[in-house]
Amino acid sequence: MKKAHFLAFLQHGVSSHSVGMWRHPLDKVGYDYASPKYWQHMARTMERGLFDAIFLADELAPYNSYADSSDTTVRYAVQAPTHEPGALTTVITGAIEHLGVGLTLSTAFEHPYSMARRLSTLDHLSEGRVAWNIVGSYSPSEWAAYGEEMPERSTRYERIAEYVELCCELWDSWQPGAVVADRATGIYADPAKVREIDFTGKYFRCRGRHFVAPSPQGRPVLWQAGSSEEGRRFAAATAEAVFAIHPTVETMRHYSRDMRARVHAAGRDPDAVKFYYGVQPIVAMTDAEAQAKADHLATLVHPEATLAMLSGQLGIDFSTYDPSTPLDDIPVPGIQGVKDALVATGAGAGVTIAEAAHTYSLRFSMPQVIGSPSTVADQLEHFMDDGGADGFMLLATYTPGCFEEFVDMVVPELQRRGRYRLRYPAKTLRDNILLD
Amino acid sequence: MKKAHFLAFLQHGVSSHSVGMWRHPLDKVGYDYASPKYWQHMARTMERGLFDAIFLADELAPYNSYADSSDTTVRYAVQAPTHEPGALTTVITGAIEHLGVGLTLSTAFEHPYSMARRLSTLDHLSEGRVAWNIVGSYSPSEWAAYGEEMPERSTRYERIAEYVELCCELWDSWQPGAVVADRATGIYADPAKVREIDFTGKYFRCRGRHFVAPSPQGRPVLWQAGSSEEGRRFAAATAEAVFAIHPTVETMRHYSRDMRARVHAAGRDPDAVKFYYGVQPIVAMTDAEAQAKADHLATLVHPEATLAMLSGQLGIDFSTYDPSTPLDDIPVPGIQGVKDALVATGAGAGVTIAEAAHTYSLRFSMPQVIGSPSTVADQLEHFMDDGGADGFMLLATYTPGCFEEFVDMVVPELQRRGRYRLRYPAKTLRDNILLD
Repeated sequence: MKKAHFLAFLQHGVSSHSVGMWRHPLDKVGYDYASPKYWQHMARTMERGLFDAIFLADELAPYNSYADSSDTTVRYAVQAPTHEPGALTTVITGAIEHLGVGLTLSTAFEHPYSMARRLSTLDHLSEGRVAWNIVGSYSPSEWAAYGEEMPERSTRYERIAEYVELCCELWDSWQPGAVVADRATGIYADPAKVREIDFTGKYFRCRGRHFVAPSPQGRPVLWQAGSSEEGRRFAAATAEAVFAIHPTVETMRHYSRDMRARVHAAGRDPDAVKFYYGVQPIVAMTDAEAQAKADHLATLVHPEATLAMLSGQLGIDFSTYDPSTPLDDIPVPGIQGVKDALVATGAGAGVTIAEAAHTYSLRFSMPQVIGSPSTVADQLEHFMDDGGADGFMLLATYTPGCFEEFVDMVVPELQRRGRYRLRYPAKTLRDNILLD
Repeated sequence: MKKAHFLAFLQHGVSSHSVGMWRHPLDKVGYDYASPKYWQHMARTMERGLFDAIFLADELAPYNSYADSSDTTVRYAVQAPTHEPGALTTVITGAIEHLGVGLTLSTAFEHPYSMARRLSTLDHLSEGRVAWNIVGSYSPSEWAAYGEEMPERSTRYERIAEYVELCCELWDSWQPGAVVADRATGIYADPAKVREIDFTGKYFRCRGRHFVAPSPQGRPVLWQAGSSEEGRRFAAATAEAVFAIHPTVETMRHYSRDMRARVHAAGRDPDAVKFYYGVQPIVAMTDAEAQAKADHLATLVHPEATLAMLSGQLGIDFSTYDPSTPLDDIPVPGIQGVKDALVATGAGAGVTIAEAAHTYSLRFSMPQVIGSPSTVADQLEHFMDDGGADGFMLLATYTPGCFEEFVDMVVPELQRRGRYRLRYPAKTLRDNILLD
């Protein structure tokens, strides 16, 4: 029987992904998210729960699709402020010994030479516990902040694939045995074993040697979320772990099957790629108590905030629509799959903008897993056994409480059932993802 | 009487600036520089010595000016490998409570919007202890690694000034009171108090809001090293602390006077800008013992390594010259002031390439301060009283030992003389620099 893996899905900001979260009476994010103490506590909590990693999502600038302004985004803390995620790496890994950090770092504005250097450095300082969630930045607000025009959708994955190819060339350029460190002769490294990169691609050029000696993992673990055709193809060819958000066990199963076939077709071992699905756990001692918590959470999201959130993610200005318009009637330039998932969630084809926005601001289009430890464990087993999930990325409701509850209640239940590990099997993040 | 300030001048790499350092029998850098434990120990040592900060220098790629290749650079660990410095920030500040970190981050390839976000984030996580050493990257190898052509020298400072102007607009854009965080209404911030940047300069464009709430220092402390005419003008207008390398007390004094006059002319208080000069302390219980240490250190630098180092810094391929050629005969495209200082150091106008390269690889063109605690303290007092120094950046000889010795021997001597503080006066780096 497959054992579960967990990631804590967070953001270096006020409210992570559940937009009203900072308003929760038990939440401390609105006050502490910028403090190392908060993140050290989070790290210790997830390590206690034997999680694989804390997954830090990111955007690069406040959304401004709603009413052509970031006013609403800033007013209601709709994923804003969001501080730079890479800076948290050693705060987290320094507090504990096994837990890893997954960093969302965009390929849009940083040169691959810099990205490769930064990630190698962090892999050293974390002692081999860094993953890179490869994204491309497709909000107009991000491109405006960097003073550039957003490129055509068709070039996205071609550009990202070249980017990652160059990074991998850099990471793989120091051969084993390159570092000699012979004090007597003064020779530190053998240049014959450090390949000079000479790369001229369609989008990037690079000539020179990678500036960092080989890190514990050699490369960061490569993570990817892809739902479009191009995204799936890229993830199947490249990713060591794939994230996806699917509202039901059926859509999970379809995605898992499709992706495992693609991984196999790309000449890779489907079992070496791990599939994590997003869920939002709401746990209490009884099902009724958990449902009451869920009901309360749903009251925390301000209606206008939800519209700004959905506008930002889909690249549509919903201030110009009647919120009772069915979402399905509106063409979407933004993130592929989000609309489909929202239509599939809840009310089905008739779901309105207001309903979809509310759902999305609470939990993206992830299933909520609400109930007693036993009910929640049943659901997670169902997603593993019938949905093809290897693991889950857990969407916060309020922090640190929701993770403490999960670790204290659900983890022991899964362990009792033989569906979760009793200790970390290894030291590096890659091994802790691959092994049970 | 003015009290001294200290910075530990280091690099996130094998040998920092004294190229043979890793070969020293007491050095641990060659083995530990990539490890958090090493940097935590360094942080605790400097905090024990009440230093202002650890100053992390940086380049972006291995030098390749020597023989048109980075072979020699890599072979002898000539400032290579060098890992990304920003990643060390929280490793250092997390280990102690007062010591700051000065980061050398280049304006060449990262957009100001990203730089401002990264530095605000680090200022939060360090609880107000970050400084930014503003540099522009002028080695051909750096531009080749990023696949670009190096721009003309004449545009350097104009571009940097615009870069910093945009960063400051972003840092200053959140007014006091912007963050409301009212759980009852759901209003987190007042957008009327968060200015939207709309910047169109000659080199950079940016439209959007700064993505990070105000950090403890508001802005990082701005550090600059400028020796050329343009560099001095920029530093006088902008920098809160200035670094310089001057081989003698006379050149220090000239520089201090010139710069203080420029700061005054720029309408700023000359006493609010601190001047740090580079020195390489070599301390022992007796002068003779210290001199023996200095003599031993001079044997650790490999002759070919020294030529690669000087080639990299000056942008000249010294493999094509007879090393006995006087340095003064050679025109220099690289770092302004380095050649002058090397000519002024040691043998004077007749100094050869080989001699200059050896000096440079040991200690740049900094004065060595060699002797017993009392001798070293005399020299430092002399530099303060007659050279206009407010503080010193201490160039390592071997780590962590050379800093432990300085802290254990020189710091108490200066304290006894009333020339050094007995405790940190404040919490933030800016205040600890400004106050005694």
